[in-house]
Amino acid sequence: MTSINIGVIGYGYWGPNLVRNFAEIPEAQVKTISDFKPELLAKAQARYPTVQVTTNCRDIFTDPKIDAVAIATPVSTHFDLALAALQAGKHVMVEKPMTVSSEQAMRLIEEAERRNLVLMVDHTFVYTGAVRKIRDLVATNVIGDIYYYDSVRVNLGLFQHDVNVIWDLAVHDLSIMNYVLPFQPCAVSATGMSHIPGQPENIAYLTLFFEGNLIAHIHVNWLAPVKVRRTLIGGSQRMIVYNDLEPSEKVKIYDKGITINGNHSAEKVYQMLIGYRAGDMWSPHLNMTEALRTEGLHFIDCVKKGDRPITDGEAGLRVVRILEAATESIRKQGRLIELDKIRVAA
Amino acid sequence: MTSINIGVIGYGYWGPNLVRNFAEIPEAQVKTISDFKPELLAKAQARYPTVQVTTNCRDIFTDPKIDAVAIATPVSTHFDLALAALQAGKHVMVEKPMTVSSEQAMRLIEEAERRNLVLMVDHTFVYTGAVRKIRDLVATNVIGDIYYYDSVRVNLGLFQHDVNVIWDLAVHDLSIMNYVLPFQPCAVSATGMSHIPGQPENIAYLTLFFEGNLIAHIHVNWLAPVKVRRTLIGGSQRMIVYNDLEPSEKVKIYDKGITINGNHSAEKVYQMLIGYRAGDMWSPHLNMTEALRTEGLHFIDCVKKGDRPITDGEAGLRVVRILEAATESIRKQGRLIELDKIRVAA
Amino acid sequence: MTSINIGVIGYGYWGPNLVRNFAEIPEAQVKTISDFKPELLAKAQARYPTVQVTTNCRDIFTDPKIDAVAIATPVSTHFDLALAALQAGKHVMVEKPMTVSSEQAMRLIEEAERRNLVLMVDHTFVYTGAVRKIRDLVATNVIGDIYYYDSVRVNLGLFQHDVNVIWDLAVHDLSIMNYVLPFQPCAVSATGMSHIPGQPENIAYLTLFFEGNLIAHIHVNWLAPVKVRRTLIGGSQRMIVYNDLEPSEKVKIYDKGITINGNHSAEKVYQMLIGYRAGDMWSPHLNMTEALRTEGLHFIDCVKKGDRPITDGEAGLRVVRILEAATESIRKQGRLIELDKIRVAA
Amino acid sequence: MTSINIGVIGYGYWGPNLVRNFAEIPEAQVKTISDFKPELLAKAQARYPTVQVTTNCRDIFTDPKIDAVAIATPVSTHFDLALAALQAGKHVMVEKPMTVSSEQAMRLIEEAERRNLVLMVDHTFVYTGAVRKIRDLVATNVIGDIYYYDSVRVNLGLFQHDVNVIWDLAVHDLSIMNYVLPFQPCAVSATGMSHIPGQPENIAYLTLFFEGNLIAHIHVNWLAPVKVRRTLIGGSQRMIVYNDLEPSEKVKIYDKGITINGNHSAEKVYQMLIGYRAGDMWSPHLNMTEALRTEGLHFIDCVKKGDRPITDGEAGLRVVRILEAATESIRKQGRLIELDKIRVAA
Repeated sequence: MTSINIGVIGYGYWGPNLVRNFAEIPEAQVKTISDFKPELLAKAQARYPTVQVTTNCRDIFTDPKIDAVAIATPVSTHFDLALAALQAGKHVMVEKPMTVSSEQAMRLIEEAERRNLVLMVDHTFVYTGAVRKIRDLVATNVIGDIYYYDSVRVNLGLFQHDVNVIWDLAVHDLSIMNYVLPFQPCAVSATGMSHIPGQPENIAYLTLFFEGNLIAHIHVNWLAPVKVRRTLIGGSQRMIVYNDLEPSEKVKIYDKGITINGNHSAEKVYQMLIGYRAGDMWSPHLNMTEALRTEGLHFIDCVKKGDRPITDGEAGLRVVRILEAATESIRKQGRLIELDKIRVAA
Repeated sequence: MTSINIGVIGYGYWGPNLVRNFAEIPEAQVKTISDFKPELLAKAQARYPTVQVTTNCRDIFTDPKIDAVAIATPVSTHFDLALAALQAGKHVMVEKPMTVSSEQAMRLIEEAERRNLVLMVDHTFVYTGAVRKIRDLVATNVIGDIYYYDSVRVNLGLFQHDVNVIWDLAVHDLSIMNYVLPFQPCAVSATGMSHIPGQPENIAYLTLFFEGNLIAHIHVNWLAPVKVRRTLIGGSQRMIVYNDLEPSEKVKIYDKGITINGNHSAEKVYQMLIGYRAGDMWSPHLNMTEALRTEGLHFIDCVKKGDRPITDGEAGLRVVRILEAATESIRKQGRLIELDKIRVAA
Repeated sequence: MTSINIGVIGYGYWGPNLVRNFAEIPEAQVKTISDFKPELLAKAQARYPTVQVTTNCRDIFTDPKIDAVAIATPVSTHFDLALAALQAGKHVMVEKPMTVSSEQAMRLIEEAERRNLVLMVDHTFVYTGAVRKIRDLVATNVIGDIYYYDSVRVNLGLFQHDVNVIWDLAVHDLSIMNYVLPFQPCAVSATGMSHIPGQPENIAYLTLFFEGNLIAHIHVNWLAPVKVRRTLIGGSQRMIVYNDLEPSEKVKIYDKGITINGNHSAEKVYQMLIGYRAGDMWSPHLNMTEALRTEGLHFIDCVKKGDRPITDGEAGLRVVRILEAATESIRKQGRLIELDKIRVAA
Repeated sequence: MTSINIGVIGYGYWGPNLVRNFAEIPEAQVKTISDFKPELLAKAQARYPTVQVTTNCRDIFTDPKIDAVAIATPVSTHFDLALAALQAGKHVMVEKPMTVSSEQAMRLIEEAERRNLVLMVDHTFVYTGAVRKIRDLVATNVIGDIYYYDSVRVNLGLFQHDVNVIWDLAVHDLSIMNYVLPFQPCAVSATGMSHIPGQPENIAYLTLFFEGNLIAHIHVNWLAPVKVRRTLIGGSQRMIVYNDLEPSEKVKIYDKGITINGNHSAEKVYQMLIGYRAGDMWSPHLNMTEALRTEGLHFIDCVKKGDRPITDGEAGLRVVRILEAATESIRKQGRLIELDKIRVAA
């Protein structure tokens, strides 16, 4: 298997980015693109004259020359398409969120494992220089014990009709958090609101609880006057501000925090003195390679070597599980929903 | 009663600001300052040689020449001091939060009403040019129907030992919201965490529910690497960004939003088309008078005319009621707590 | 002449943008692309399979089916290529700066006029929504009398070998200024420095004098740690801040200024009182169409109707004349160089 | 001489800051304040009941108990007052600019040297944590060879009637530059404009030339819509952005620059390849002590020990000499004015 043939299903918003990146990877080529809108296929054909196009995605599944399938369709179709692809013996890269339910996600993981196929979820941000740097900083204890992870992802548009704002926007934060933090949340409390009758929530707030005193919070909003993409990570040693809208200094590390001195004896705990430290701020140079290129190379590499991708099916499942629980909590106006330890079918 | 004599109790962090502002108001003078720390009184004396100082606040209550008392002490002492002042026949201006419980707040309201005395809570932000402009924009329907009120108030320090971060920081947002919005919240769901053993929560998130589809959220944090003071208000006509850290353009109004067109028939509600509008942004010139001066003048005016202040006891009570409920919700990890319609004893 | 056939010379940095935009304009099509690097032509061919490519630009001049030529080559070649194109009867759109000397620019204007051909200079910024809004604000007297025009355009890279930083960066500011201001400068004083031995100046400062008390200044720098693109325009009524790096609020209008009251009698002029006014700030919604699309449509329209483009040869000449004078002034360390009233050969 | 008695002349804009800081320095006390406006003296008296006040500054010169005089009056009076103080045997701290001419400055230096008295100029910024950090970075070769120093200091107001904007604003940049850079400028070219008839220039641009390829530029403006206080310092190793309006991260060091590789043979110099490096950014924690306190302590220390202050008369003279030359250059529309090697009378 020298070069990987890829079929791409869906050429709407994200599909063209997948095609463009796979087209530029030496060890891969896009063989077929499918979409049910002929006008999108015409665009694809004009841009990539040697690629085959079809309105029937079955043509991709039945083509024995195709090794892998990338799925960039609405989330409600992910499960059927990914399952069919796996059953046809194709490796799969599927858009986030992986599926509309954790049951579906587990079924896909099981199918891929049984057939020894690569199943990767396109958690794009995990492949950015910024997020990888943050993971390094956490993993090498530069931050110390993690106290909180707080993220805001708001802007005006694009309202979705079939999923609420957390499935559209919080999915990014959850996939980043899943990669960056060495812990899994154990419960979620979420609130939200829809401002268009009959439509899903367009604003939502999630609190995630972990073992110990780590807490995470995500604010997502489709109806904000300004665009904000900012994450604060507080630790015992240092704190991070990750602002994805900054052109170059996306990650800043603050050597700031509190110091606790004082009498820890049981009866006098209230007398402890809290001090404040402020040191230098530092913004590391980041790898600016397009995330989707890094990700595409990783996918091809996993396919060739039979490796498990960083953003494998289980990473996708963990995120879907939280999205499910948060949606349930929103319906119950903040009621705490426990997140069971996830077990994949053996 | 030509000029109002004022006694100020507490000369720690906020008291000096009260004294400085009352000292510059023509129709008022500070007659006495009390604090239990002699070194603070020495400072006060050096700066204001003609003012009397005392370590015993009773000297203020028993002085028949004193018309009004301003209380700037820790919140746990507000009730006793304010009650004693009212019972001594003095008008009262008390720091926020008004009291540690809504029962105490109601008791003070009752006492002031029975004695026909002014009872004012120092919700300072209500007297800023920025907040007054926002109230005008809401009241004159420039914003349209209010969809959400979202506020972030985070920085590093000053950890309190006796109250959690919502009593210290969210109190500002709640007092602003109480003034700006024409509605009262009916329930609260809140989460939070303490990162210092035995100490109150230093990070917290509050969601407030209202009748209809208005939602509010407040994020407060004593342990953030950067200082943020930003409120987003979304409406059907326009949206506001209020950034209190901007030196001059604190309030920006965005002529942005969504438009909804489409078939509202029951079965086809999902077909409605959401459009996006983007127009001009506008930042009104604001009155930059120091809030405490405006507030001091208002207090003196109310005392002289027997008027009810804008931030009266009931405003203070409404805020305390939410703080109580939110604290309870935090303990229950986000459990929804209903806010009863508040009734002041007749 | 229903649809305009275009030949594009130069497919390096800017040429692909020209091709892409012309390709999307219904009444135009790119017939031929020339470049002396075969690898760039291969790229062009892959992307636009129906376009002809050639390493010999003469093939464009001699093709009778080509109506217009767009030239995106190094500035030193502009004159020869544009002249040849005009002499072959083609309309011309040439990159900025138009030529390396005003003599060359005048020669091209003359040739185009004699042959009744369109000669347009690609002053791209003139076709942005931001710059057009600024021109409107100036033209409708919203700003009042213009006091100054101050621009900073600095970043790290891309050092040029054949021209100094003013020919590369200040050319943008001069073309914007030429479009926005209703006046022409009458003299220039400039300073600059090279920090690489044997290379042209990489940092420069230009002051432009006008009739009356209008003054303009441009700071350009290839060796700055941060990217800045900011223009301040001061007027008697209002002031503008144009920050091209802002994603949406690129233009802000400040209703701020000074008021002058006082005794203007000869001996007491020093007693005049200067007051300061501060009113609202306003950021108008801007047309966000890609400038090069607007410009391409304008060029095609001029070709079809025989109209004179907004950024015609004389606009190009005016900018070149200032660049020449500024370069001379830099050599003389700030010596004032007069700008003669430019007269195009009749 | 255990504690230094100080007389302060001038209690307008800056005088109160001097008095407040000297009042808080243990080894100094303000004995007398003079101002010709009685209402200002009344304010001073109310605030500092034990200080003597006088409308006649001679009372300060003739008081044998006064050791040192701080002068915070309009610049036109500096020379006479400082000379009288020195002749009365007092140490002197004088506001910037030191005098209205370099002759006057030299005369004061001479007088102070002859009498062995401390003569200090209040170049306040030199005593900030930010500027001291920058000097350290330059002195320890963190920046490498200095390529340029570029500063912008603009805002709306306060127009002066007796001096132009460079004597009011550029004086800050020149005093900082004089402290930070290890070199002296050898020539200046400046331009500027007045927008109020009969008044001094309210906008100005200075270019300073040094030996070698170091260049400096200062832009000052009293009529800008926004406040800017930003200095860029470019070096061969690193570059600095100093933004004095940032609340905490005032100084940022960018590990960025160019690399030069290539054939330096005479005929092929144009082939040298310029590369670009981008590394981390770093913002050091700064000492946030009020500059005037650090400066006051330094003055008292110099008086007690007979040391020469950092911002001595010669530092003041160097700045005045540039202001003189720049004013002459503005009159001549950018004409280069040489700065002679300054020699203080022996």
